[in-house]
Amino acid sequence: MIFDSVCIGSDHGGFDLKTALLQSFQMVDLGTDSKESVDYPVYAKRVAEYVVAANNACGVLVCKSGIGMSIAANKFAGIRAFLCTGNLEMTKLSRQHNDCNIICFGADFIDTKLALECLNIFVNSVFEGGRHLRRVLEMERFLIN
Amino acid sequence: MIFDSVCIGSDHGGFDLKTALLQSFQMVDLGTDSKESVDYPVYAKRVAEYVVAANNACGVLVCKSGIGMSIAANKFAGIRAFLCTGNLEMTKLSRQHNDCNIICFGADFIDTKLALECLNIFVNSVFEGGRHLRRVLEMERFLIN
Repeated sequence: MIFDSVCIGSDHGGFDLKTALLQSFQMVDLGTDSKESVDYPVYAKRVAEYVVAANNACGVLVCKSGIGMSIAANKFAGIRAFLCTGNLEMTKLSRQHNDCNIICFGADFIDTKLALECLNIFVNSVFEGGRHLRRVLEMERFLIN
Repeated sequence: MIFDSVCIGSDHGGFDLKTALLQSFQMVDLGTDSKESVDYPVYAKRVAEYVVAANNACGVLVCKSGIGMSIAANKFAGIRAFLCTGNLEMTKLSRQHNDCNIICFGADFIDTKLALECLNIFVNSVFEGGRHLRRVLEMERFLIN
């Protein structure tokens, strides 16, 4: 794995998949802790802030569709979140070309086995830099302007 | 359609799919205009700024994987961008629960017919509001803090 640590967060809709992923993959659990209804942006914020504060961490976010998590996480400077629907090649590209540091799953649209496979690809794929780095840096400037 | 206008932008990797979509769906074309290499954030910015400035518009963004476009677009206040990989139910949810106003396609991972089908679902699905509106508004605050 190329990251020093991985954290995970979910809302109530993603709680079961989060629990299942934690049984096979060591991660810092940032909640939620039950299936009681919560707002996904709260957990997107926790994971985004953990990843930004850490030196070399990545994050996992789960909700029912993964869509809200991917939007919320990308609102943070320094976060590049990928909505993963189980395509292995796209998962690899999210690291190689986009230097993504958060992977989002929709619990209603991916099973545990495929999510784990994608997570393993994600944490083991290396950013290629070069022209891709220039584009990543361009995006960060949008938050300032 | 529930939007007054739709705009579209792509990088070189999404140029062919953009051209194909424009043959079947009326949209404002914000470039790129050839297959010469360009940086996707430039076109994400054009489409995001068009959507934010318009009263009731949505946008389409295309690159090779759609990943870079979805990250870049979500960096803008007022933008909620969805990375669509062809799942019709997720596409509907992106509007109903997340009030998404940009749909992103990866030209290497979706064909024209399926992208058109998703686009038609996207522009005809209505945001449900309520608790989903509260969550959407929470995300916007991340850009201020």
